[in-house]
Amino acid sequence: MFVQQAIAILDSGVGGLTVAKEVMRQLPREKIIYFGDTARTPYGPRSSEQVKQFTEQIVDFLIQFNPKVIVIACNTATAAALEYIRAKVNVPVIGVIHPGARAAIMATRTGRIGVIGTVGTIGSGAYTSALKQLSPYVDVVSQACPALVPLVEQGEFRSEHTTHTVDQALGEIKGQPIDCLILGCTHYPFLMDTIQDVMGQEVKLISSADETAREISTILYDKRKLASGDETPVHQFFCTGDPRMFQNITKQWLGEQISKTPVVWQVTQLS
Amino acid sequence: MFVQQAIAILDSGVGGLTVAKEVMRQLPREKIIYFGDTARTPYGPRSSEQVKQFTEQIVDFLIQFNPKVIVIACNTATAAALEYIRAKVNVPVIGVIHPGARAAIMATRTGRIGVIGTVGTIGSGAYTSALKQLSPYVDVVSQACPALVPLVEQGEFRSEHTTHTVDQALGEIKGQPIDCLILGCTHYPFLMDTIQDVMGQEVKLISSADETAREISTILYDKRKLASGDETPVHQFFCTGDPRMFQNITKQWLGEQISKTPVVWQVTQLS
Repeated sequence: MFVQQAIAILDSGVGGLTVAKEVMRQLPREKIIYFGDTARTPYGPRSSEQVKQFTEQIVDFLIQFNPKVIVIACNTATAAALEYIRAKVNVPVIGVIHPGARAAIMATRTGRIGVIGTVGTIGSGAYTSALKQLSPYVDVVSQACPALVPLVEQGEFRSEHTTHTVDQALGEIKGQPIDCLILGCTHYPFLMDTIQDVMGQEVKLISSADETAREISTILYDKRKLASGDETPVHQFFCTGDPRMFQNITKQWLGEQISKTPVVWQVTQLS
Repeated sequence: MFVQQAIAILDSGVGGLTVAKEVMRQLPREKIIYFGDTARTPYGPRSSEQVKQFTEQIVDFLIQFNPKVIVIACNTATAAALEYIRAKVNVPVIGVIHPGARAAIMATRTGRIGVIGTVGTIGSGAYTSALKQLSPYVDVVSQACPALVPLVEQGEFRSEHTTHTVDQALGEIKGQPIDCLILGCTHYPFLMDTIQDVMGQEVKLISSADETAREISTILYDKRKLASGDETPVHQFFCTGDPRMFQNITKQWLGEQISKTPVVWQVTQLS
């Protein structure tokens, strides 16, 4: 029996599904194994040490599937554990922070880049470091927007309340003379239209989810690891919390990218 | 004496300077060694076998500098020689076709992608192959635009004549229901504004030069090869034709990306 080597995607919960969805769209031949640590979500308020430990546990689980690449599809986990995991495993590891940074450097004309994310991600300074590593000539302004993730998790993508909340959350960064804004949280692509309205059409929005999928494509090509078959891959989903709830969100979020109800496995022996 | 490991960029002539310029902008810490085969330009009308042979000669020359990556910044040479060179050398090799293809797959919403390039590039079907390798769900329409390179080489970036020529050249592809258009020739970014006017604002233009620079950034990060110093790198330029003419074009095209007249070396022992 032929088992297709998969792209392993891990997240603190459901946010990383935006990355999975983009991988399905950009690389429809690739099989995905998704792991959402829904029992321990959110990672944002946890210590960096604990996030690193949780991430390592999940990687230890996923590595048994012999994945072709491991994607840390969570900004908090990327900030806390990317370099540690890269040094640990013998498989390419991709986080969500650097792809967004590289895309912003490409997109900016003025060199003034904005970043929004969770308190943990913005507090870590990881985007600023990634941007400054590439170019000393960029100015970075960043802002934590803790009010946005709850909106997405409640499914409130477009409403008057959403516009008001996004407008309040972006208050400070809205007045800054930036020409592009990195959506530094995997939940935010769901609010893209509202964020664009609030920021104005002249500010280019960078989705770290889209950019990460793009870079998975680049890395797999470089490693000669792109799937070539024409069969529809069967994706696998693992979560640590309630599998029924996870299955519902997955079905709703992935929409047209999956043809039937996703198979979800619950894993409970992690910690 | 510390010699910074460089990004080696090769082209049939001056077109690849658009890639070099973007690398300087996106990765200002990186040193570039540029090779323009100006005595044998253009490669377009040559046989694939000869283009492969010329590309190999240049790679044999450049590899002596111990580059961190080799960039084939010419669509014709990428189509003819990329896989051959990738198999031959022990250094990452990046062409200009796949980065554009990956960016288009990310950008498209309808799955209908247009490509324009030289007769050689379009005739090789390399973009269609690269796009179809990633996704079977895209429709690709392509058109050779032989009239555009001469416009750029004459420096006619914006004029009534330019608009008319571009409009004529894009005639067929203009009526197609595409939502993005790959500029599959390194000369075309100079005509971006005119092409955008002719195609209309709703068609997203993909510059293979910009996207290649972005992917060099991705690959160098993955290989842990990004430069970290804060000194201004001293780029080196080699050409096989008249060095004075090459120096003038380099100065004019690179503009603000270089602070002084570039050092150009003429190489005459290649064939």
